[in-house]
Order: sequence, then structure tokens, then C-alpha cells
Amino acid sequence: MRENGLRRLWSNGDAAINGWLTLPSSFSAEIMAHAGWNSITIDMQHGLIDYQTAVHMLQAISTTEITPLARVPWNDPGIIMKTLDAGAMGVICPMINSREEAEPLVQACRYPPKGQRSSGPIRASLYCGSDYQVHANDSVIVFAMIETKAAVDRLDDILSTPGLDAIYIGPADLSFSLTGRFGFDHAEGTVQFDAIKAILAAAKRHGVVAGIHTGSPEYAAKMIGMGFALATINSDAKLLEEAARAAVAAVHAARGRSLRAVTGASAPY
Amino acid sequence: MRENGLRRLWSNGDAAINGWLTLPSSFSAEIMAHAGWNSITIDMQHGLIDYQTAVHMLQAISTTEITPLARVPWNDPGIIMKTLDAGAMGVICPMINSREEAEPLVQACRYPPKGQRSSGPIRASLYCGSDYQVHANDSVIVFAMIETKAAVDRLDDILSTPGLDAIYIGPADLSFSLTGRFGFDHAEGTVQFDAIKAILAAAKRHGVVAGIHTGSPEYAAKMIGMGFALATINSDAKLLEEAARAAVAAVHAARGRSLRAVTGASAPY
Amino acid sequence: MRENGLRRLWSNGDAAINGWLTLPSSFSAEIMAHAGWNSITIDMQHGLIDYQTAVHMLQAISTTEITPLARVPWNDPGIIMKTLDAGAMGVICPMINSREEAEPLVQACRYPPKGQRSSGPIRASLYCGSDYQVHANDSVIVFAMIETKAAVDRLDDILSTPGLDAIYIGPADLSFSLTGRFGFDHAEGTVQFDAIKAILAAAKRHGVVAGIHTGSPEYAAKMIGMGFALATINSDAKLLEEAARAAVAAVHAARGRSLRAVTGASAPY
Amino acid sequence: MRENGLRRLWSNGDAAINGWLTLPSSFSAEIMAHAGWNSITIDMQHGLIDYQTAVHMLQAISTTEITPLARVPWNDPGIIMKTLDAGAMGVICPMINSREEAEPLVQACRYPPKGQRSSGPIRASLYCGSDYQVHANDSVIVFAMIETKAAVDRLDDILSTPGLDAIYIGPADLSFSLTGRFGFDHAEGTVQFDAIKAILAAAKRHGVVAGIHTGSPEYAAKMIGMGFALATINSDAKLLEEAARAAVAAVHAARGRSLRAVTGASAPY
Amino acid sequence: MRENGLRRLWSNGDAAINGWLTLPSSFSAEIMAHAGWNSITIDMQHGLIDYQTAVHMLQAISTTEITPLARVPWNDPGIIMKTLDAGAMGVICPMINSREEAEPLVQACRYPPKGQRSSGPIRASLYCGSDYQVHANDSVIVFAMIETKAAVDRLDDILSTPGLDAIYIGPADLSFSLTGRFGFDHAEGTVQFDAIKAILAAAKRHGVVAGIHTGSPEYAAKMIGMGFALATINSDAKLLEEAARAAVAAVHAARGRSLRAVTGASAPY
Amino acid sequence: MRENGLRRLWSNGDAAINGWLTLPSSFSAEIMAHAGWNSITIDMQHGLIDYQTAVHMLQAISTTEITPLARVPWNDPGIIMKTLDAGAMGVICPMINSREEAEPLVQACRYPPKGQRSSGPIRASLYCGSDYQVHANDSVIVFAMIETKAAVDRLDDILSTPGLDAIYIGPADLSFSLTGRFGFDHAEGTVQFDAIKAILAAAKRHGVVAGIHTGSPEYAAKMIGMGFALATINSDAKLLEEAARAAVAAVHAARGRSLRAVTGASAPY
Repeated sequence: MRENGLRRLWSNGDAAINGWLTLPSSFSAEIMAHAGWNSITIDMQHGLIDYQTAVHMLQAISTTEITPLARVPWNDPGIIMKTLDAGAMGVICPMINSREEAEPLVQACRYPPKGQRSSGPIRASLYCGSDYQVHANDSVIVFAMIETKAAVDRLDDILSTPGLDAIYIGPADLSFSLTGRFGFDHAEGTVQFDAIKAILAAAKRHGVVAGIHTGSPEYAAKMIGMGFALATINSDAKLLEEAARAAVAAVHAARGRSLRAVTGASAPY
Repeated sequence: MRENGLRRLWSNGDAAINGWLTLPSSFSAEIMAHAGWNSITIDMQHGLIDYQTAVHMLQAISTTEITPLARVPWNDPGIIMKTLDAGAMGVICPMINSREEAEPLVQACRYPPKGQRSSGPIRASLYCGSDYQVHANDSVIVFAMIETKAAVDRLDDILSTPGLDAIYIGPADLSFSLTGRFGFDHAEGTVQFDAIKAILAAAKRHGVVAGIHTGSPEYAAKMIGMGFALATINSDAKLLEEAARAAVAAVHAARGRSLRAVTGASAPY
Repeated sequence: MRENGLRRLWSNGDAAINGWLTLPSSFSAEIMAHAGWNSITIDMQHGLIDYQTAVHMLQAISTTEITPLARVPWNDPGIIMKTLDAGAMGVICPMINSREEAEPLVQACRYPPKGQRSSGPIRASLYCGSDYQVHANDSVIVFAMIETKAAVDRLDDILSTPGLDAIYIGPADLSFSLTGRFGFDHAEGTVQFDAIKAILAAAKRHGVVAGIHTGSPEYAAKMIGMGFALATINSDAKLLEEAARAAVAAVHAARGRSLRAVTGASAPY
Repeated sequence: MRENGLRRLWSNGDAAINGWLTLPSSFSAEIMAHAGWNSITIDMQHGLIDYQTAVHMLQAISTTEITPLARVPWNDPGIIMKTLDAGAMGVICPMINSREEAEPLVQACRYPPKGQRSSGPIRASLYCGSDYQVHANDSVIVFAMIETKAAVDRLDDILSTPGLDAIYIGPADLSFSLTGRFGFDHAEGTVQFDAIKAILAAAKRHGVVAGIHTGSPEYAAKMIGMGFALATINSDAKLLEEAARAAVAAVHAARGRSLRAVTGASAPY
Repeated sequence: MRENGLRRLWSNGDAAINGWLTLPSSFSAEIMAHAGWNSITIDMQHGLIDYQTAVHMLQAISTTEITPLARVPWNDPGIIMKTLDAGAMGVICPMINSREEAEPLVQACRYPPKGQRSSGPIRASLYCGSDYQVHANDSVIVFAMIETKAAVDRLDDILSTPGLDAIYIGPADLSFSLTGRFGFDHAEGTVQFDAIKAILAAAKRHGVVAGIHTGSPEYAAKMIGMGFALATINSDAKLLEEAARAAVAAVHAARGRSLRAVTGASAPY
Repeated sequence: MRENGLRRLWSNGDAAINGWLTLPSSFSAEIMAHAGWNSITIDMQHGLIDYQTAVHMLQAISTTEITPLARVPWNDPGIIMKTLDAGAMGVICPMINSREEAEPLVQACRYPPKGQRSSGPIRASLYCGSDYQVHANDSVIVFAMIETKAAVDRLDDILSTPGLDAIYIGPADLSFSLTGRFGFDHAEGTVQFDAIKAILAAAKRHGVVAGIHTGSPEYAAKMIGMGFALATINSDAKLLEEAARAAVAAVHAARGRSLRAVTGASAPY
């Protein structure tokens, strides 16, 4: 069985820098897989990605040693099991707001007797090895997203769910739920920041790994410094969008004078 | 007939900042189309993109007012005509090394009596209007790539091809051909830079528009300042790759101290 | 934020003629988007279309100013939210038979505090503008399908669901449910027609927009005349099928005599 | 070996009504395959269709007994052979203007010793039978398109090419080439109509089957009456576009009065 | 209405040998459809196949007379109805553990008044005939998978569900659930074999058809001999994997001596 | 630069057992890549595979250490260069019948000054390393297919082409060309076998590697024993087809008696 790179990293006391894929393309996934992240998550919830595309992306990631994760669109056993069968080594499930929602999530990710995952790891056993079914329960990482006031109110209930490995904070939804306003990379002193700290503390109390989504390397580093074991920076789409806009702006800035040179030239048409 | 944005831009004496698509995804194309470029080129030669994917990308670009171009894989009338039928408003053709190669390129892009393009603008007439066939010969832009020593040796022959609107310099291939070494954004005083200047001068002499591929906004601005009417910066793949690597590096840089904080924590596993 | 064209149309007191997409192709979608409809619905329930294809179709529709809607396959928050994130400006949800089913539908379509939609409008914010999250709750249209006897029996309950904008009648399923027989474009005096009238009256009572699926332009016009604010005609697949069969039949009809001419000729083989 | 339905039809002295596919979708292909055509052509030249999509479409057509043909994008042996291997029972090749172009077309479609088609009918032998390679040379139909003045000037040369089964007239390109103007369904007395008659007469003289593209059932019937053995009507895209526009127009026409009814109603928003 | 081949086979007192598709490819599906199976199942649960791919595969299977079935990913009405609309003539649903789960499965597969399937058999009515909606309730086969201890404990409850046609045993999951260990083709005398016998006996008692998944032709034949009416052998992926490994091994075995011959040769590089 | 596994194997004096991909699926490719072959060839000529699908397949193969090759559809620089840019480490080109055809093949595969390959190894440089362009000329393997009488007549001319690394015999086409009959795995004493021996001898004389396609492990072992450095066995499609037919036949064989058991049972319907 292929080792889960995140578990090894964490057992070494280190934290993961996680890449985030929303572009439905196996080539952008392969580019991201070569960029130095410790793990990469295929976002099947808000990314423009469905299952069949995710399979190609999992294959592309598997050309490297990076650990592939997937955020599933919803807490639905059908898609969770399909995603694991395709070779994801961890699942991030959105909107887990209660113990009643956390338990079926875990059940869907674990083979009996720990859960009710159905047997058929068609690609996972190619990618991880023919003994996948023997070791998968100890390898696959189950993340519950904590991203609503309801979840914050029931942290102990959720975090004590047997078999739940990790939580993942979605700061944008958390902000919407707590304040009615969208936001990211919340500053210290805000309601959102206080909630993040409370979630992290609760996770540590329960021995559950804590991860978080961020909007910048600086905030990611800060979160890791605070004790998060995994921090995501933005997404492939955002990185591309910002880089493209910056490139265009840089030409405009550099031209200033050179704009004149062209304008002065006789027009080609 | 929809106006060709590049022709309008050029007739105003301005130059185009051109985006470059190599990711086979209509969503990355749509993101790029919103990033401020004046035109966008789908690279069907070195990009991981074939015709069917290019159609989706042309549709995505058409959600904006940006002018869509395509670099075809080779000087082949079948794919050139299919690409124009799908709605590209200009074609960049690689490796035009002689008048004998430039003429069929132009023929493939023009309806009779100017050329031999076959009639059937199935998507172009939706996108550009039902009078597409009447105006296409005056709208579609034909670019021949000048990227070999052979082409430099026959500049006047190539540039005097009737109906050739523009040339596009591929500095990497040009460098390979002139020096046997790969390279980009060549410095003044090099053989490659001299060739670029000579090509530009010849193009101006023949009233042919000159475009060039560059590796940075700074070099693009410089080329526009020198008189190029279109400069491309890198590609979506390169922008994504560099942005992703920079983000990971920035976390590592910012951690320094915070790395300790995690390592000091008891490992979650 | 891009204005929702249907809301503008309705606020002007006009009704929408709605096109219906069941062919899994972005090009047929683009053709339909140029045909004069006021809105177009991608049918992810009975159409042969899944999410990834729907994304391409939404891009194709976005090359025009037509308002894109989507019928989701079922009342499932995962696919409803993904469809909205991809840029649909309204959702039609099948088989809403009770208040207990209508409420989670609305919740899935509205950001907090009005609902529980998760934040991540990855393509919607490109298509509609970067302030999408601020205005989406007031723009996105939520349609509940009324298409069973059970729903007719609980009209007031369903129609008074806070945040429910509209209902959409599926006359085929309604007929199945009321009579055990399949049928369309029901004549006055039938049980089905009476139910349609009752649904329309209830919708008006509750200030809820009413739409309906029809099988012909004549019936669509009649329904609009009765007070429906949106009427769909058939589907792309049906339009194509009928047009193709009519073309073949017209040749057979026109030949009569000409058939002889060929038969009289010596066979080419 | 599965019989080629067109050869049987022709040997019975009848003519074929041919459907035309330009939508890149196997489902629209399957709908067209059920509409009563005698044969169906996948247009890989002007249709928005490439090879991989064409394979799905050939499979869809093979769910019926209709004879599948394909128009290839260009006279290129690679794509011609791939298309035949995928199960097309005939190939229509655009822009055959001379004997020098007709001969390699035939060569690409025939196994040795009659030609140079490479052996590997991977899907054709599933679809047609395991003895495909023995009989394919007698079954596959090779059509050369006659659509330029150059071709008209060399009719006897082209039509006497050994192994050329059929010609197919492209009236739009022919019109462009003869008159510089686009046009279809040319009236008697025009230059184009005279050319069509001349081509048909020459084909009959050489024992070559003649087919033609038309824009309406009436013109198709007329052409069959004149002696054409195959007439195409429009395309799936055109049929859909016209049907959709007609449906919208019919609602507008029928409303007249009913428009008032809606406007009189209080606006739902 | 096209007859359901499995119902005819069973009414003749024969059993079905069922092929199993997990490769997401319409061409492998077409190859399998020509291999002599009585029916073929597209596995949308553990196969790497989603809905859009399944549509292409259903089309490919429909080029033959084989009966197409589909295993859906989960007991979800949205995907069950979409799969039937696309032309599957039977549905195998995983993990039916109670009467409460069996009833909605049946409801999703039957039109009113027997169930709540929504009307819109878009491809099914092309494939099966325009009277599909009249006869589908008597034709479509509903299989509940029995594959857990919980299901075995409630056999009579499940098997007496009105409208349930058949059950299908998943021996791997059953083994996991009964013993905590993965396994296949269980030997007589094991707990698993006893359970299989008990399930078969209960099915016969209730007049419900019984099918089972096996790992070899021998075990399949044995199961049919025991009274199963349908037995699956492995999957396309397993057949390919085993055949490829056997081919490589056979070369190594055959070489022994010949290996020397090559090694003795001077290396080409 | 990633080492080319075939070159290493050959330099060790060993021969390669080559797998052959004709199914257009990245998952079947991944299965094949785990089956023990030394190299795997994506057949873009007779396989049902085009460029975009081949990219996914190259990614899937890259999840292992197997060397990926591709057979291109024709001797066309556009597709040859695209295939290399996508990461194929060798190209097999069909129907090379003369020196005039061999030279442009080599030119398309080599960067200047050895050839005219255009620079842009977009995926190859991810897969092989950022120094790809420096080493590719020494790594990429160029195979010319020898498969016609014409080629056999000009062996020395073809084999002395500078930069041609290898030849690959297509015995089916060779048989067609030499005898007018299709055939495989030709027995000693036949014209075909004599030609194969002559080709092998000539290749060794010129220091060119020789590979061959075969239909069975036994013949592959025999060819390696004769001195071939690479032997392919069949294809994925053939392996699947034969394994599926064998499985069905084995059930029929095993049933004999058990068939009775079922028939004796009362029919379930």
C-alpha cells in the first residue's frame, strides 16, 4: 500500500501546503502537481469539475509523488465512494454541521467493520497497490468542513465522531454564516478570527487535524504558525487570473513612454 | 459582420497585448478572456489543444469582446479552414520559410477569388453575423511565423506574398535555427536580436504587421516600443506554473520561524 | 452584477418564450441562443446532459444576452449549488410535492442569512460580475416544479415558501399523476387543464411567477394569454427530430413523379 | 460483411435522401439516424466535429440500419484511413480539382493491390463483420467533391480515375468559384445550374454516381428527378436553427392579442 | 416497444451470462457487446464511469441486440431516472439493506401509478420505441443488491417489496460485512456461501430473480447450476489486466532460451 | 532529463516487450501500464484515438516508469511534433516507403541543427525535466514502419537515413502488399517471413534497431529470439475481445449439465 504522504508529513510534525484545483483540466493539474505543494485537492464542489474530469486529474497528479485529495460536492455516499475508488487519498466534505452529518461521512469512507464503504477500489488499487482494501481504512483521510455557525456551536459533538481524522475550515462560508458578509483571510480581533481560533483549539483538544483555506501565502504561513497542519492557498483559477492581470498591467505600466512610439508609427492599416 | 478588434486597434495606431492559451480548458480560456488582453491566441501547435477543445475555447472567449486568434499546428488547409469556420478571427501559422509556403497559407484563409477557402463558416457566421462570407476576406488576419534562418534569408519573398497581413516571430525557434540553442527575450547585440530587428524593418517596408512572442511584460513593452503591433506574454500554463511556485516559495519564506511552531506541536498522528 | 433578463422582462409585464436544451452539445446550445428565445433552459434532468457538459453549454449561451436557466436532475443541494456556481441565473427543480421539499430547494439557492448556499461562484462571478455574491440572492430565480397530484393538493403550502420565486408546470408528469396517462398540451375541459388553471390561480394569489412546458407555439401563446409568465416550447431534440422527418417526407411527397425518373435511369451499379 | 445500403439502393435504381451532421453530438446523430434518411454523412470538414467525436457519432448511427458516410476535412490519407477504420461506409472528399488529387484519394480508400490503405479496420470489422478486409474494396464508396471551376474544366480526367465511385457537388463553393458569390439551390438558366447539369452528364458518361448538396426538400426532389442518385438536404444545424426560429416567431404571431392579456396583468415583480 | 431480452431469456427458463463494464469507453463497450454475453451492465458505482460516458456506452451497446443494464452509484432518484431515460433496460442498485430503501428504488423506476418516475425517456423512446412510456413499467428490471449482513437479516422484508423484480448479490461486500475480510467466489461451507444459498432460496420463495457477481467462468457456471438466473464474470478491466499480464508472462516463459539470443547480439546502442 | 527506458534496455542487450493501445481510454492505458510491458505504444493510426485522448493516455502511462511511444496517423509534421510535445518518448510512423519519406520524418523529430522540430515541449518538459530541449535529440526514438513491397525494395536507402533510430515491421500491411492477402505471424518459408528476415538483416547491417508487431506471445518470443529488439503483442482491444469471448465460452462449456438445472427450474417470469 502506497503511504499517504500527508500522514507521514504530519507524523514528522510538519504542516502541509496544499494546492487547490478548480480548472477542469488534467494538464493544469499536472502543472500544479509539479509546483512544490505537499498535497493537492481537486475541488468537485465549487470547482468546475465533475467526476469524469476528476479521474483524469487524479491520473495527472499520480505522475508525481504529491498526495491527492478531493473536495466532494456534498455529503453523499455515492460520490464520496466513487472519488475514493478513483484514487483520492483523502476526502474533504463541505457543510458538516452536526454529529448526524459527520457520522455518515465517516461511514462512507471506511470499509466494514468501521464503516459501510462498498468494495471496488478500481483505480485506487492500481495506484496504491493490490493490498489497498486491507490498509485503506488506516490511510484515507476524512476531513469535515467546519464553515457555519451551526457547526461552531456543536464542535465537540462533531469532533468526537469516531473515525473523523481532520477538519477543514472554509473561511468564506464561515464569514457568511457568522456575519452575513463574504470575506477571507480575516484579521485578528474579528468574529471570524475568533471562531477560527476556537475551532483550532477544539480540534487539538480532540486530537483531530486542522486545515484551513487561505487567500495568500502570508496568511497560510500565519495559520501554520498558529498550529494548522494544512493550509491551502487560493486556487489554480485565482493564481492564473491574478498572474494574467498582473502581466497585462505590467505592460501598460512599462509602456508609458513606449505607447507613444507605437502611436507615432504609421498605422499598419 | 462583427468588427475584428485587432484591425480597429491597429488602425488607431495602437499595439495589442496578446494572451496565449495552451491549457486545454474552456474555463481557463474564459478566465484569460477577462484579464485585459486585447486578443487571445489558442495555441493548437504547442499547446495541449486539439480542434474539438479549441471550439469550446472559442465559445468561452466569445463571452467577451476580446479578439480570438488561433495558432494552427501546421500549414495544412484542412485544419486552417476548420479553425476559421469555428470562429477564429485570425490564424498564426508556424514555420513559413518561403514564398511557396506562404501562398497556400493565404489561399486557405481567403474565399474566392482571392483564395480557395471552402465555404461553410458554421460557427463563424453565428459569432460574426450572417454576412460573414461577404466580409471575411477583409476581416480575417493571416499571420506567417518567421522563426528560422531560412525564412530570414527570404524575407522579401515571403513578405510580398499578396494577402499576407502579418508576421509573427517565434524567438525560441529562431534562436534554435540561428544558434542551435534555445532562448527567449534576447538581449540587444545578440544575433537573435539583430534578426528580430531585421524582420521588423522588413515587415514595415512591406506594410505587413509584425507581432512577436515574449517571456515577460517588460520585454513585451520593449518590443511594442520598438514598433511591434502585437506582443504576446508567455502563456497561461507558464503564468500558472510560475504563480504556483511563487506561492509555495512564499509560504516557505514566511514560515522560517513559524515552521518551528508546528514542529514543536505534538504530531497529530 | 449582470441583470437577470427574466426579472426585467417580467417587471415590464411581459412573458418569456423559453427554449429547452436536451442535446448534450455546446454548439446546439449556441444555435438555440441565437434563435430569439427570451431565456433558455439546460435540462439536466431528462436531457442527456450532465454537469460538465452543462458548463460548456452555459458558456455557449453566454456568448449572447439570453438568460440561462437550468433544470437540475433532482432536489439535491450538491448539484443545485454547482449549477448556480457555473452561471445559471435560475434553477428549475423537478417534483416538488410539499413544503418540506420546497424549503431546502430555496435554501440551496440563497446565500446566508436567507439560505445555506455555499460560497464559491467560480464562473458566475466571471459571467455576472465580481459583486455576484452581494446581489445573487436578489437575482437568481428559484422555480419549483408542480407536476403531481400531491403537489396540487398542497399548493398553498408550497407556494407560501419564503424565497420561492416561481413554479413551473410539467404537464406530462402532471397528466401521469392525475390520470395514469401520458399527455401534453391538454385541451380545455380536461382534468389536467383544470389543474393547470388552479395552479396558475394559486400562483397569482401568492405572487409567485408561473411557467409551463408546452408542445407547440400555439399552446405556448395560449398559456401566455392565460397569464403564464414563461412558456417553453418543446425541446431542441424534438425540434430537430420533427424538422428532419418533415424534410424527408417532403422529398418523398415532391418526388412522386421524379421517383420514376431515377428508376427509369440505368442503375449506377 | 455488412452490405452497403447505398449500393443496394442504387442497384435497385433508386436515389438516396442523405442527412447531414454538423453538430458534434452522438445524440443528435442518433435522432437523425431515426428520421428516415437513406444515408447520413458526418461532416468533418465544415461541421464542428473532429475524429474522436465522429467515432461516437458513427456508433450512434450504427444503432440503426442507416448507411454512415463521412466528409473528411481534406484529401489527407491519415484522416481518410482513420475514418474508414472507424466504420464509415463511404468517404466524401472536398476540393478534388484534378486527376492528381483524385488518385491519392482512391488509393487511401482501397486496400492493395487496388490502393494503399493500411490494414487495421478496428471498429469497421466489429460493425461490418470479421471479413471486412476481404470485401471492403467492393463496399466502401469513394466520393470526390466537384466544387470549383478548375474541377469543371477537368471533368473527364477526374471522372475517369480508376476506382472513383462517385462525385458530390458542393453548390456553394462551386458558385463562389464560378461567380465569386455565395449561393445555393441555383435556378435554371444560371451559370451554376448549367455547370451542375454538365457535371451530372459527365458523371453518367463515365458511369460514376452523382450526388449533390441542396438547401430544401423541393430542390433535392428536383435534383433526384434530374438524375442525381443522392441528394442531401441542409444539415442538422440548419434544421434546428430554422425550426427554433419558426417556433419563436409562431408564438409572437399567435400572441398578438394574448400579449395584451399578460401586459394587463400586474407584473410578478 | 423493444422486448427486454433478459425477460425473454428468463421466460424460456434460461440464465444470463452478464458482462460488466468499468472502463469509461464506448469502444470497449462495443467490443464487449460483440463477445457473446446475454446482457451487459455499465457499472456507474465502482466503474470509472459517470453519466455522460454511460450515455456513449449505451449507444455503443445498442449497436447490437444485447440487453443493457446499469449499476447506479447509489439509491438516488436523480441518477436512476437519468440512467433509465438514457436507455438502460434494467437498474442494479447497490446497498439495499431494508424495505425502507427498496421501496424508493422501485418508485424511481416505475411511472405512476406504480411509482414516481418522471416522464421524459429522451433516448429510451428512440431506442425502445415511441410507446416506451406505455410499456416501460413491465419491461424495465429493478435489481436490489443484497450485500450486507443487515440485508440478509431482513430478506423477507426486502424481497416482498412490490415491484422489485430481482436481487443481485455482491459477494465482496457481503464478505466484508459478514467477516470483515474481502473475498470472492466463496467455497462451499463458508459463512459467505451459506449466506448466498440463503439469499437464493429466499428469492425463489418470493418469486424474485436472483443474480450474482463472480470472478471466473467456472464459478459463474456453478452459480447458474445452483439456480441463479444471471451470473456476471469479473469485468472488462479485470479481463484486460489478466490477459495483458498473461501475455507478458508468456513471452518471458517462451524466451528462456531466446533471451540469450538477443543478449548475445551486439547492442543496438 | 528522464532516461529513455528503451535505450537503456537496448544498451543492456535486452529486447522490449511492447504493449499496444487502441482503446481511447486513459484508464485502460493505466491498466496496461501496470501489466509488465517494457514500453507501451499509443496507436493513433488504427486505434480509435486522437490527439486529445492520447494526451490523457500519456498522463496515465506516466504514473508508471514504462516508456511511452506513439504511432502517429501519418507522416505529417504537425501531429508528429504535437505528439512529442505531449511526452511520447518515441514515434512510430506508418508507411515509410522511400528515403524521401524517411528524411522529413526524422526532421520532424529532431531540434535544429539536426532537424526542424519546433520548440515547445509543453508537457514533455514537465514529464522529462526542464532540460528536455537539450537532450531530446539523443533520447527520442524515431521508428519508420517498413510494411510495403516498395519499402522492401529500397531498404538500404531508407535505413541509411541519418538520424533514423529504428524500423518497425507491420506484418499485416506487408502481407497485403506482397501477396494481396491479409495475414499475421507468418510461418517460416512464406514470402512474408523471408521479407521479415531480409528487413531484420538489413537493419542490423545499418545499425538500426528492429521492432515488429505480432499476434501472440509465442511469435513475439520467436521474433526476439531471431534478433528483434522490440516485439509487440496484439493490442488492448484484441486482448479484451479474446478474453471476453473465452470467458463466455468457458461458462457455456462448464454448464453442459448445469444448464439443465436452470431449465428445470420454474421460470421466474
